[in-house]
Parts: sequence; structure tokens; C-alpha cells
Amino acid sequence: MNGDESIVCGDRLEVRALGGVPVVGAGADLGGVVLEALARSAITLESGDVVVLASKIVSRAEGRQVDLGTVEASEEAHAIARELGKDPRFVELVLRETAEVSRRSPSAFVVKNRLGVVCANAGIDGTNARPLEAPPGSGPWALLLPEDPDRSAEIVRNRLESETGAAIGVVITDSVGRPFRFGTVGIAVGVAGLPPLWDQRGRVDLFGTRLEQTITALADQIAAAADLVAGQAAEGRAVVHVRGIRFTPGRHSARELVRPSDQDLYVRKAPS
Amino acid sequence: MNGDESIVCGDRLEVRALGGVPVVGAGADLGGVVLEALARSAITLESGDVVVLASKIVSRAEGRQVDLGTVEASEEAHAIARELGKDPRFVELVLRETAEVSRRSPSAFVVKNRLGVVCANAGIDGTNARPLEAPPGSGPWALLLPEDPDRSAEIVRNRLESETGAAIGVVITDSVGRPFRFGTVGIAVGVAGLPPLWDQRGRVDLFGTRLEQTITALADQIAAAADLVAGQAAEGRAVVHVRGIRFTPGRHSARELVRPSDQDLYVRKAPS
Repeated sequence: MNGDESIVCGDRLEVRALGGVPVVGAGADLGGVVLEALARSAITLESGDVVVLASKIVSRAEGRQVDLGTVEASEEAHAIARELGKDPRFVELVLRETAEVSRRSPSAFVVKNRLGVVCANAGIDGTNARPLEAPPGSGPWALLLPEDPDRSAEIVRNRLESETGAAIGVVITDSVGRPFRFGTVGIAVGVAGLPPLWDQRGRVDLFGTRLEQTITALADQIAAAADLVAGQAAEGRAVVHVRGIRFTPGRHSARELVRPSDQDLYVRKAPS
Repeated sequence: MNGDESIVCGDRLEVRALGGVPVVGAGADLGGVVLEALARSAITLESGDVVVLASKIVSRAEGRQVDLGTVEASEEAHAIARELGKDPRFVELVLRETAEVSRRSPSAFVVKNRLGVVCANAGIDGTNARPLEAPPGSGPWALLLPEDPDRSAEIVRNRLESETGAAIGVVITDSVGRPFRFGTVGIAVGVAGLPPLWDQRGRVDLFGTRLEQTITALADQIAAAADLVAGQAAEGRAVVHVRGIRFTPGRHSARELVRPSDQDLYVRKAPS
């Protein structure tokens, strides 16, 4: 076994947030938005390029905004909301997106969501959530993650590939907190084309010793690199272009990054 | 509060592994190695640049190789080694570097090490561990993390700044596994100059809503980006140059990234 030779990271990576990307509304043609942004930055897509999209722009294009005024909170949501000091309708949305509650404390409600991502509030966002044409008196608004981010990524990939002829990867990202460490990092919640994991087991180190443990979270690290230039605030740099990774395109899913709960030492099991 | 305005991520990041970096031995002049590598790549350091060093090259320069033949394993180490199928002398080293055992399973021994980093085997590596002039019959060898990676980073930073006049950041990285997700990612175990966290609380989103939760793990994301070009295997690209982040240099520590166990929902506490 010689590791996964279908991926090569060169010695140089260029990570570039594309300027002028508008705030999109439901029904936006996301592939078109990316193509226009690339053209504006005079970037011609090449095979091996990766286009990174913040989940918020994908969610907005897919109309994943929810008016909390329309949400009816269950008894469970009311009980948790009292404990956490949150809006019970927001908690109701979180519970609907939850596969498994991971941890709850007065300061955090961490769940494994239906995509398998462990994060606060199931990844539902109270910022950047307002629709472009929200009726007066509506809201507050919440923004759910895309329904099926792998599919969203695949749709954008197909559009970009058919327009440009380049074989590319698309990564849809979210920013999440982590156990053990302060600060959020970008992770991949959807992928298309790009293998999310890079298996380097079987390669040898500087002295010929086999690397036993090294499977790199390629897509998560691309998401982290993109997060450095994307920004969270008003500048809204939701589309990032990454050049410098070579990979054999294939059918992949961000679920490859998700560790099943029964193989996880932290989601369920009590400390030893 | 308007967030931390002393950090600005531009819209473009260049991440470049420096070629021709030799395998170093104990006592190597690490600053000199970096300066030579930069010159070889025709890179002139500018203020705001970040130099990222894989912990393995720092450890090797600092002589952190240990010949397991010289290690006497305690009873506890023998007991754990039997359970895990590992060399008891290796487990002994892990225990010496451990502040707190986090999880133990037949497949993993995860601890919070004396640097506060939660990772398998306290970050001790069995690869890239052999000294350049190891006596015949010695070993097997293990490579400990640097004794004080913040200090190691500061020494390199001082050297590079005094030679070039640029105000730079230095990050020392390790690759670690994570709860919830497959694949390793680069994290920062030592920093100098660069603020490891980027506080964006108080900034506003696209609609003027305040960002409440957003503190970005700047140094960890730089480590992840660098890991994409550094490689783990024989190519040995242990020095990476990052350009595109602007920050106000200051005195910092990678410990700013470490969440204390009593504020952590995962290190100690049982699931709710």
C-alpha cells in the first residue's frame, strides 16, 4: 500500500476571496454568481482548482431562511430554551435539525446535526439570515444549513465544469467551535469532485519508516485556509478560489469526514 | 466593542513550502536554515509574513530524540502498553509528557499533554525520529515535541526579524486527530508575534446584526493551510511561508488557544 497517489499537494497554494459577490436571495443562480465573480477577478478555472463556498451563501440561494414568527416550539424546546436563555422557536429549529444531542450547558447547545456535523445550534445561524425582501414586521430570522450540501456542491461543480471544461472541486464550508481549543475553524459540510480525505498511510518518512496514522482531512484544511480570507462580517467574501492542489476528480461526500458515533471517543462515551 | 482591528486578512493568501530544507540534527541553527531556505526561494520577508515550522524540524534541532533503549517503563506504563499493544517504553514517554489522560481505547491513547494540547500519544512521534548520527544498534527512536514551542518560535522570530527588519509571525505546528471527524489537521503548538485568536465579536454582518460568537482560531487555520503544502512524507517540506495576513505584532502564546479543562464540555465531563 502506497497511500493515495491520486492527490498531490504542490509546494504552493493560492487562496483568494473573490470580490464583488452580491448578497443573494432565494432562487439565485449560484453557479452564475461564481462564474461572474471569477470573471471579475480575471481567473480562468484550471483543472485541480477548488471553489470554496461559505454555507451561508448557499443557504440563502436555496431559501433556507426561516421566520421564527412561523415556528411553533414544542414543550421540549421551551424547556431547553428556558435553561439556555434562548428563543424557544430557535431551539425548536435546532431540535428539528438534530440527530443526537452531544452536550448541553448554560452557555452551549452542541448537537450532531442531520449532516453528521457536531456543532453549536446544529449550525443554524442568527446572522446573515434576513431574506432580501423580508416583509415588514417579519422575523427574527434564522438561516439553516443547506438541505443537502453535497448535492449543492455537485450542482455548482457541474455548472462550472460545463462552462469551463476544467475538472474542479467544490467545497461548502461552515465555521465551528471545537472541544479542547478556543476559536472557530472552517470545516467542509459539502464536497463535490474533491476527495475530502487524503490517505498518506504507507508512504515513508525521511528515514524510510512507514507513516501509519496519517490520513489528512484535506477538505477541512481547505475550508480552514479559505476561512482566513473569507471573513465573517460585512465584507461578505463568500466565494474563495484555491489553486495548488492536484487530485483525481471523483464522486465524494463530506460524510466521509464524519466519524460515526460508535467509533467516537467523545460524542457518547463517558471519560475513562 | 468593534472586534480586534489589529488583524486584517486580505483577500489573498499565498502559502508556499520552501524547497531544499535539509534534515537537521540536534544543535542545528534553525533561524539560519529558514533564512537560507527563504533566500533559495528568492523570498524577501515582509512585515506581516508568517513563517510556519513543523514541530518535527524544531524538535530535531533541539535534540528531542529519545532512544527507547534508554527508557525504563513504570508499572503503569507496562499495564497500559499491554492494553494498547504498544512498546511500554513509548507509553512511559507519553505518560511523562501527559498532564491529564483524556480517553483510552484499544486503538487510541489520547491525553492532554503538558502544553495543553489534546492529542494521541502526547504528540510523540515514532517517525522522523532517528538522529542523524544514531549509534548502530540504538533505537527505536521517538521524537518529543519541543520543550517550549512558544520560546522556540520566539527565538526564530528574533533571528529573522534582526536579519531582515520585517515584523513577522512564527507558528510551530503539529498534526492532530479530532473528536467527531476523521482525518488529521494542523494546529499551532507554538506562536511568536502573531495573535493566535482573532476576535471578530462586535463586528456586524451583512445586515448590521452583531456577530456574537465569532472568535477565529487564526493560528490553527494558518497551521491547517500550511499542512496542505508541507506534506508528511519523504519530501520533508517542514518550512512554509505565508503571506497575506496583516497583524499588529505582539507577545503571544499558543496557550491562548487551549481551553481549560474546567471550561471544556469534552475533556472531563460525562455526556448529559
